[in-house]
Amino acid sequence: MVRLSPSRLHDSLRGPALGSIGFLNEVMSRYPDAISFAPGAPHPGFADDLDVQRCIDRFLDHLVRYEGHTPEQARLRLYEYGPSRGLINGLISEALRRDQGIDAPPDTVVVTVGAQEAMLLTLRALFRPADGDLLAVANPCFVGITGAAGLLDIPVVGVDETDTGIDLEGLAAACRRARAAGQRIRACYVASDFSNPGGGRMSLECRRQLLKTAEREDLLVLEDNTYGFTAEQGRELPSLKALDTGRRVIHIGTFAKVCFPGARVGYVVADQPLAGQDRLLADELAALKTAVTVNTSPLSQAVIGGMLLEHGGSLAKLSRGKAELYRRNLAQLVNTLDRTLTGRVPPGVGWSRPSGGFFVRMHLPVPADVELLEISAAEYGVLWTPMAQFYLDGRGDSQLRLSCSYLDPDQIETGVQRLATFLDKEIGQ
Amino acid sequence: MVRLSPSRLHDSLRGPALGSIGFLNEVMSRYPDAISFAPGAPHPGFADDLDVQRCIDRFLDHLVRYEGHTPEQARLRLYEYGPSRGLINGLISEALRRDQGIDAPPDTVVVTVGAQEAMLLTLRALFRPADGDLLAVANPCFVGITGAAGLLDIPVVGVDETDTGIDLEGLAAACRRARAAGQRIRACYVASDFSNPGGGRMSLECRRQLLKTAEREDLLVLEDNTYGFTAEQGRELPSLKALDTGRRVIHIGTFAKVCFPGARVGYVVADQPLAGQDRLLADELAALKTAVTVNTSPLSQAVIGGMLLEHGGSLAKLSRGKAELYRRNLAQLVNTLDRTLTGRVPPGVGWSRPSGGFFVRMHLPVPADVELLEISAAEYGVLWTPMAQFYLDGRGDSQLRLSCSYLDPDQIETGVQRLATFLDKEIGQ
Repeated sequence: MVRLSPSRLHDSLRGPALGSIGFLNEVMSRYPDAISFAPGAPHPGFADDLDVQRCIDRFLDHLVRYEGHTPEQARLRLYEYGPSRGLINGLISEALRRDQGIDAPPDTVVVTVGAQEAMLLTLRALFRPADGDLLAVANPCFVGITGAAGLLDIPVVGVDETDTGIDLEGLAAACRRARAAGQRIRACYVASDFSNPGGGRMSLECRRQLLKTAEREDLLVLEDNTYGFTAEQGRELPSLKALDTGRRVIHIGTFAKVCFPGARVGYVVADQPLAGQDRLLADELAALKTAVTVNTSPLSQAVIGGMLLEHGGSLAKLSRGKAELYRRNLAQLVNTLDRTLTGRVPPGVGWSRPSGGFFVRMHLPVPADVELLEISAAEYGVLWTPMAQFYLDGRGDSQLRLSCSYLDPDQIETGVQRLATFLDKEIGQ
Repeated sequence: MVRLSPSRLHDSLRGPALGSIGFLNEVMSRYPDAISFAPGAPHPGFADDLDVQRCIDRFLDHLVRYEGHTPEQARLRLYEYGPSRGLINGLISEALRRDQGIDAPPDTVVVTVGAQEAMLLTLRALFRPADGDLLAVANPCFVGITGAAGLLDIPVVGVDETDTGIDLEGLAAACRRARAAGQRIRACYVASDFSNPGGGRMSLECRRQLLKTAEREDLLVLEDNTYGFTAEQGRELPSLKALDTGRRVIHIGTFAKVCFPGARVGYVVADQPLAGQDRLLADELAALKTAVTVNTSPLSQAVIGGMLLEHGGSLAKLSRGKAELYRRNLAQLVNTLDRTLTGRVPPGVGWSRPSGGFFVRMHLPVPADVELLEISAAEYGVLWTPMAQFYLDGRGDSQLRLSCSYLDPDQIETGVQRLATFLDKEIGQ
């Protein structure tokens, strides 16, 4: 019988990005009764509202009323292969214009199997192995982008995330170092609002400066907008794409958090023109998609399209109730940490106070590693995510990430109490 | 404004595989009234039978009755991210055992976004750029596999498809040539039953010999089983995987033809153990999948799962009615070609008589190229697919592919009449 040599399988399978996800799932499955601050998944309570057939019917009705289909043609759109660029591009385009002031005509949008496929397609289009280009990423960094880069053998350099966004000096320095080595940084990945795992938010000034840096250094910006919807109403900041006058920004979004993850629908806005051709980067992404997933499930797109239509075609309306729950949970998590831990825990313990998103970051005076997580889970019934796996450079080993999205207020309360006992007993000595 | 240089986008965007799909769609969209023998898509009439909600309810009922879920937990499975290896692995495993005699326990199965993602994941796992390994493919070849190889910069060598399968001598010679060049052929892609585009079927003897060759040359076989379900009842041949005692075969299937393409659900059986680890290749594919699509839409999986359950968990029962329609269409296409063209068309025109699948191959005494297709579409109202794009070595330029799957009998009749007039007038001089 054949036995495959692990060393002849692709290198990314031995990298940290893929392994970390598997490890976390494994720990969680062993402690099903623990309160888990680990998953960045949407709150399960929203599942009750999902009515698949109603959403589909709404989308079919839209195709008949506004896109000139017969009912039979409309049903066929759900059944058949569809265009690789997507079925609901017009709805997404309109929502981005209306809600975020992003001018993204339908032909600049590609509908993808979640934000993850959008990242993979974008990296594939922009990086040729022969060029040896580098991808810069805000550090610490979402494992989805480093995982996709690893799968495509794209070298990654970290640029520090800061309290106000990203270290622009550090980015410029990385560009200089790359040039000195005969390479270049082709693109820089950032999550402008409430990054995962850092929880940081980029200031308006940093957004403007990042776009200037991109122009000066001739690089593209991959903006991941997953958590932008959680911003407090009236305190939203314009996305990088909304500020982008030079078409430097490739904007990636997902319906996983504002609709539901099980649909696996995301999108990418790629309005960059190709020199000397009547084509956009979006056309190239759609072409690449034929070799990855052919097209995004029309069934899933119909459900998401129907949800959008039920909220007047507005992402903001669609996500309002969800955003409120996540803000309530986040406030409760931070307040409970403040109330429970202040003055009680040893020196060196601290936590962030983000204004949105799913994630609070905590610092410990000891390594927050896999061994400590096992103790936390087994003896205190509380789970969290070690931050080290999100860093490219071995830092973060005394940090952990707490996610508030999946829990109810009473679970957050109990979870923080357990965390307090854990910290008392294990690191308070 | 930025302008991207096409020469700095990924090379596969300039390759033939991706371009050909776009070109065909473009021609078809310009001649909507032509009768099209081009698409290999399922018959649109089956769309009438699709009842999404009924299928979902059936699957939810299954989760409650047989997998110990509460109704709430079952609904949550559709809503949430799921395991990257899939939700319906058990159903697929059981169907493969029952219908095809394939022993594929659930942990050897990964559910994918169609067969396309299964190909991409498999190639990614098996090929390291540093090794410079080659992928062998039966030539002519499905563009999905060459497209995925191109996206991953994997070099491809063609091995001739023959009337009884694949040129085994040619495969052995290609292995020798690779070794002489310090390389090796890591895997060989074949569609054992009714390949796309060739329409060929591998004989039982060739299947056995291919497995021996794989053992001798230490290569893996990627078996694409998309069209196997169209075999006449009682004349099925065992798949390569069913014959595989050495775990040399990675078996790829799709529900696109037996259920519906809009679900985007396929699967891969990868039961190859890793040396020195308690892991299978399937585990590695599931890990890679987290960086491509995270997981296959649970919603889509539920619909497919429900369809399977409605047919007693049997792929054979599920596909029986569809297989009958495709066999009827194929017989009608071949018979009408025989009746209409024999004795009427010039020497050098001939066509294949496959015993299953969607595709008939036709030879012309002139180039069956894009220019001739334009004439056929514009002046005679009939579309087909040039075969040259499926060849790796520039052959096939006088061949075309006729697909019977999307048409009704009267359209096949009219289409062949138009084809006869076209051949008469354009190449009969």
